[in-house]
Amino acid sequence: MHTISIDTESKSYKVHVGSFIYEPALALYEKQIKHADHVVIFVDEAVANLHLDKLLKPLQSFLDTSVHICRLPAGESSKSMETFMACQSFLLEKGCTRKSILFAFGGGACGDVVGFVASTFMRGIPFIQLPTTILAHDSAVGGKTAVNHPQGKNMIGSFYQPEAVIFDISTLATLPNQQVLSGMAEVIKHALISDKNWLEDLLSYQSLENISEEQKLSFLVKGIQVKADIVKADEFEQSVRKYLNLGHTYGHAIEASVGYGNITHGESVAIGLVISLQLSEKLMSLKEGTAKKLFNALNAFGYSFEPVLKQEIDQLIPYMKRDKKASFGDLHFVLLEQIGKPCMKIVPVEEVVRAHEQLRKWSKEVHK
Amino acid sequence: MHTISIDTESKSYKVHVGSFIYEPALALYEKQIKHADHVVIFVDEAVANLHLDKLLKPLQSFLDTSVHICRLPAGESSKSMETFMACQSFLLEKGCTRKSILFAFGGGACGDVVGFVASTFMRGIPFIQLPTTILAHDSAVGGKTAVNHPQGKNMIGSFYQPEAVIFDISTLATLPNQQVLSGMAEVIKHALISDKNWLEDLLSYQSLENISEEQKLSFLVKGIQVKADIVKADEFEQSVRKYLNLGHTYGHAIEASVGYGNITHGESVAIGLVISLQLSEKLMSLKEGTAKKLFNALNAFGYSFEPVLKQEIDQLIPYMKRDKKASFGDLHFVLLEQIGKPCMKIVPVEEVVRAHEQLRKWSKEVHK
Repeated sequence: MHTISIDTESKSYKVHVGSFIYEPALALYEKQIKHADHVVIFVDEAVANLHLDKLLKPLQSFLDTSVHICRLPAGESSKSMETFMACQSFLLEKGCTRKSILFAFGGGACGDVVGFVASTFMRGIPFIQLPTTILAHDSAVGGKTAVNHPQGKNMIGSFYQPEAVIFDISTLATLPNQQVLSGMAEVIKHALISDKNWLEDLLSYQSLENISEEQKLSFLVKGIQVKADIVKADEFEQSVRKYLNLGHTYGHAIEASVGYGNITHGESVAIGLVISLQLSEKLMSLKEGTAKKLFNALNAFGYSFEPVLKQEIDQLIPYMKRDKKASFGDLHFVLLEQIGKPCMKIVPVEEVVRAHEQLRKWSKEVHK
Repeated sequence: MHTISIDTESKSYKVHVGSFIYEPALALYEKQIKHADHVVIFVDEAVANLHLDKLLKPLQSFLDTSVHICRLPAGESSKSMETFMACQSFLLEKGCTRKSILFAFGGGACGDVVGFVASTFMRGIPFIQLPTTILAHDSAVGGKTAVNHPQGKNMIGSFYQPEAVIFDISTLATLPNQQVLSGMAEVIKHALISDKNWLEDLLSYQSLENISEEQKLSFLVKGIQVKADIVKADEFEQSVRKYLNLGHTYGHAIEASVGYGNITHGESVAIGLVISLQLSEKLMSLKEGTAKKLFNALNAFGYSFEPVLKQEIDQLIPYMKRDKKASFGDLHFVLLEQIGKPCMKIVPVEEVVRAHEQLRKWSKEVHK
């Protein structure tokens, strides 16, 4: 079991990563969990059917009281104010108090909405994250919680750190391919902003299936460490934490424009990463050809660039202007001076248009 | 203009108190306000009609851009998830970002819901509190934000500190008598937990109308200082901050049971204060007769104890068990060892029943 410390201004806690680790990891928090007056598991419906027993068995081995289980809609659709309020009502109906403890058992969406519930129920109660997707190696670390507003993704939320993150990668075996793609995009992002050699290693695989379990574990631990270092330096996204948004300005716009649920978060980010690298070649000193190389590798992995062909740039720009990093209507992008050296830039609209058109050409060649 | 510093773990800021102070106080924040990409005033409907010009004039004297004004339902009814979502939508429609700044212009309810909006819009943006009630001298200080859930008051919220509190007591002149009563209950609470001499001074007035403007200002400054000292020691209500809930366990139960809107927060707290003192006489060393003396003074001020006659204790107990200080279904009360010396106690149900019955007898004598 790997253990990574997350030390933020507001709280220090551990991320535990490994295969079949619920029993040993939960044992570390046995005292705190037993001390709670109510234990509530919020679980993604799809995850419940596949993995709930894995979690219940070790929990019930030391708990005298029963746990309350509340199933949430699977995936991104749970990140709504409706689910948020349903969770709050569930907690009140069960008689939960500030001494209760919550588990968020599922992917990024589940962690985001349950984290927001934990941060606001009676002004904040403890919760433990149990991610079940590759993507959640990113979202479960660092304390960003949120739900979506019809007018934008992650518009309502908070910064709120969990008590612990227990990431049992044995749950990844059942992950649909689209979710593997979604999560690996964030792994690639972590490599892009931190380490040239790691990136080359990553992109050298011809297919995601060629990555062994052991390699995957090592990549996830590396990715979590990158995030931990950044969150330690800047919990509230005032400076370097913004670098984690590499690929997200354009990515979020694609995601919103295509429609949540029709494309995964990571698939949109993958497209956004290529755009960021195109812009970095043009506006920064990033080596020419890097964007194209990434584009080719992502295609080999199975990422689709069709959304770029379908979405007009005029549809995308308004979403980019509403990005949380935006102000005064400018387009703020994370760019790379070189691999491992991110920076923030205000990018002229015409440059984004140009990158979009170029990526369309590349995509047409592939999708013709 | 009096200025009190609030130094919490997460933030330091000032509370400015005085008559007709919007111009000089806002001038202190001119740079920050001008730097914002959008300025939004959320204002209680009733306050807007009476006082909005007072605020707009000095703001517009240095702002080049227009301010957005969003009127909220007057009073406690605005503390709902519906208002919360309406505020979020308003901000998105106006194109607000993390660089925008919000004003909460109204009483405690307005501050609570707008504070919660500020704490969660894009995971937190700055806001300035402009309280317009005596009660808000309490609620605007210390960073507690919340909305009500149909199943309980303040059940969903956060700890989130404002940039500043600007308390112009000239707005109190238009306050309905019921709101004066509501606010003065918290002033009396602050005296009860801090200072015997101040309490005696307060209770020596035969009527609230006998309190001069100058005296009122002095009482408010004193009350804010009591709260500032406590919040400094314990921002997140892990220890001494709980003392501020004197009178609130029973008070919240009365408020919920009678129905929000039918009785003000402070009127319920006033009743709860008497109950706390009765319990303190019985279970702690508080001097006998203190509760009755407070009861008599509150009656003279015009507080009504009729709700105690109307509500059965069996209706109240479930609400007390759901109090945020509760755990494992116990009844947690703030009691007084003596005036100025609060403590937390788990109180047996039968003692609460006894105090309730005794208070009913006293009330019957007054209301017969």
